[in-house]
Amino acid sequence: MPGTESKHVKLGLFETPVLNVGGMTTWTHPENQTHRYADLSYWVETAQRLQDATFDFCFLADSYGHGEIGGARPDVNAREAMELPRLDPMLLVPAMAHAAQQLGFVVTASTVFEPPFANARRFSTLDHLTRGRVGWNVVTSSFAESASANFGRPMVPHDERYAMAEDHLLTTYAVLEGSWEDDAVLADKASRTYADPAKVHRVTRTGPYFSVDGYSNTAPSPQRTPVLFQAGTSEAGLGVGSRHAECVFLQGSTRARLAEHVTTLDRLAVEAGRAPGSVKTMVGLSVVVAPTREEAQRRYADYLALNTRESAIASYALFTGVDLGAFDPDAPFSGIRTEMGQSQVERHARSEGPGPTVGDVIEAHRTRGSRGMVAVGSPDDVVDEVLGLVDATGVDGFLLEPFVQPGSVVDVAEHVVPRLRAAGRFRTEYTEDTLRERMFGAGHRHLPADHPGAAARTWATA
Amino acid sequence: MPGTESKHVKLGLFETPVLNVGGMTTWTHPENQTHRYADLSYWVETAQRLQDATFDFCFLADSYGHGEIGGARPDVNAREAMELPRLDPMLLVPAMAHAAQQLGFVVTASTVFEPPFANARRFSTLDHLTRGRVGWNVVTSSFAESASANFGRPMVPHDERYAMAEDHLLTTYAVLEGSWEDDAVLADKASRTYADPAKVHRVTRTGPYFSVDGYSNTAPSPQRTPVLFQAGTSEAGLGVGSRHAECVFLQGSTRARLAEHVTTLDRLAVEAGRAPGSVKTMVGLSVVVAPTREEAQRRYADYLALNTRESAIASYALFTGVDLGAFDPDAPFSGIRTEMGQSQVERHARSEGPGPTVGDVIEAHRTRGSRGMVAVGSPDDVVDEVLGLVDATGVDGFLLEPFVQPGSVVDVAEHVVPRLRAAGRFRTEYTEDTLRERMFGAGHRHLPADHPGAAARTWATA
Repeated sequence: MPGTESKHVKLGLFETPVLNVGGMTTWTHPENQTHRYADLSYWVETAQRLQDATFDFCFLADSYGHGEIGGARPDVNAREAMELPRLDPMLLVPAMAHAAQQLGFVVTASTVFEPPFANARRFSTLDHLTRGRVGWNVVTSSFAESASANFGRPMVPHDERYAMAEDHLLTTYAVLEGSWEDDAVLADKASRTYADPAKVHRVTRTGPYFSVDGYSNTAPSPQRTPVLFQAGTSEAGLGVGSRHAECVFLQGSTRARLAEHVTTLDRLAVEAGRAPGSVKTMVGLSVVVAPTREEAQRRYADYLALNTRESAIASYALFTGVDLGAFDPDAPFSGIRTEMGQSQVERHARSEGPGPTVGDVIEAHRTRGSRGMVAVGSPDDVVDEVLGLVDATGVDGFLLEPFVQPGSVVDVAEHVVPRLRAAGRFRTEYTEDTLRERMFGAGHRHLPADHPGAAARTWATA
Repeated sequence: MPGTESKHVKLGLFETPVLNVGGMTTWTHPENQTHRYADLSYWVETAQRLQDATFDFCFLADSYGHGEIGGARPDVNAREAMELPRLDPMLLVPAMAHAAQQLGFVVTASTVFEPPFANARRFSTLDHLTRGRVGWNVVTSSFAESASANFGRPMVPHDERYAMAEDHLLTTYAVLEGSWEDDAVLADKASRTYADPAKVHRVTRTGPYFSVDGYSNTAPSPQRTPVLFQAGTSEAGLGVGSRHAECVFLQGSTRARLAEHVTTLDRLAVEAGRAPGSVKTMVGLSVVVAPTREEAQRRYADYLALNTRESAIASYALFTGVDLGAFDPDAPFSGIRTEMGQSQVERHARSEGPGPTVGDVIEAHRTRGSRGMVAVGSPDDVVDEVLGLVDATGVDGFLLEPFVQPGSVVDVAEHVVPRLRAAGRFRTEYTEDTLRERMFGAGHRHLPADHPGAAARTWATA
């Protein structure tokens, strides 16, 4: 792909205060320290380690829900700490950000469950406290059925959730972009003028789901609106993503599909009136790297051996609602189409063998979980894979999904980061102050003029 | 009052990330550093200073609203940074708690605006991260009209807000007390048992305002339910407070009224089936202390001089909805009865002079704001006043309302704390791990058996 060969790679860590990530049950690995998930020191150490390796940011996933099969939580979910226990990830950020004063933080929050005014105030607060290093991973809500029941609410249907997300975002922009002008705050004790009353505006917006009539509680933070992240490639999701997202997470299966997603997103964003390159893309990547290829493969096998058929069935049900354990393992999978199983079907189709059985899909989930791409090998193997992926697909970078913590990060920091730097493909130090500038270059602290959020700055065009 | 003479005094700091507290406009004072309200270092320093002085906790007030007169925010509110800008105070706690590992934190959250499941998860997360040093100041919501408009919601009437609070609290208990048994978590890698499925329960509760059907996201934190704080002495407020609160903040006007409130609360709590002494009381106290009485009085006069008639009218309107500026200053106040003005009327009544005018009440608010008691003087003066208040009224301690920050805390730490310690009336070091034990003694980590929250532990009585 022309022009991308020397592109710098973006790196984030996919984390959250639970015992397992990636739909696998690796918490029992002797090197895994995720049992320290409720210890602030663990998170402070993680932030410092990522900052030492000049990662772009730490990404914190979230959900209020949990997996069920037939309306009940399977016993294996409690035994293997699947999804629960979980803490609120946003509350880790202030301590991590104070200890690591350059690292970025991307926090997940749901447009279904968080009221826009409160959510806007939280992200604005984080953006103030971190001096502009915060992103918001906008989700319509994962595990929506159990999360809704926890909130005592009926579940909002899938496509309507995206209409809510659109309305939520427009309300958020009204609050964070429309209320206080850039130079409203003077903070001048001598003249007794903290803010110029003429530059603090009442914002009034009535939407189909959300409304606001008042003033942002917060003065403008360095970025105002946090950098907007989004995941998901459903049609409705792509619509919201291409209009609003500044960075989209993709879970790739093949280079061809990943390249197609990258191209589609850019085209949709341009169709939505945004400049080419307005939407960065990052792909989930699980890395197992060791001094030798054999050592890496041995470790990878150790991780996979921790996942059982039972945990794979429960994990599959969490993401799809389908209980594969209720079917004959030898039955063809083709009758039970789910998005997650679909990639297995495609892989088999390409191999031109018979279609996969239910048992094949269970086994595939046991060894893959909800993870996307995996790079296993020596340092050179992994660096070749990482740069090859970027150069072949146009993706901007990677969200590292650890198998064990801190081990997976330590290994990447030791074996991969120095080689990317030596190749001129990764920063050696931080050069921008805010997360948005880190993503889009110096001077790009705020949403650009062609982003729908900019239209909320009515004071700028009045 | 027998038995209270040697009682230890409890001390908290009343704070929040705004420029002014206490309904006054002291942000312009040269020593005031509240313009650093968005700087995490400022809050970390505050926490360390409080911990060095062995304060019980830092209390963080909150509201989503702002003051208006006739549907508009007065210009003076922007100029003097009244109420706004404001950050979300909860997000200060993780960084403060990591820097000060023994200090307690009490965070305000509204039962009208925060959904119970999300709110429970946030407080449980804080209780995990602080290892049991968190309290929740339960408010039905201050500045409710403008806060509701910010959320695009109709305002809930005053008394109904307390019915919502009751329902919110019962839902919170179901989540935090009813889901995971005390010994549900084994975290045993060898046997691959993180939690015992038989000890993680689905909680189902349907209330008039709030419902839950699912599992607490969080495993039990050290205190489970945060220590429950409440303010307000309206009849509806006293009902919720006497049933649920473990510590009530009072804004005293006279020793006699304060003693009456303390007695009433204890009586109401006993009538609600709780043991005597179940509800601690703390009173707001503004302290100006200096090496000499004259120096303290000079400083106090400096603080009061910063408040103008205009800011007093705006502040009075914020708390009462009444625009005193619209009345003839010489008119009698008696026709405009508000709770806040009432204490002025009573003071005048006691002096047996003519009733106060509107202008008198404005001037009283200018020099008092929303503050309660004030102690101004030499170190001995203030210590005498503090201990005299405790011994005469039975109140358990004080919530220090600073005029300037960090000055007001520095002065109390230097001049008052050592004398209280020397008198055997204040701790010299922290001896309990959790905030509830600090309030009620070693061993009292959880809500007691006679608290309504304990009834949610259905697994304990099944």
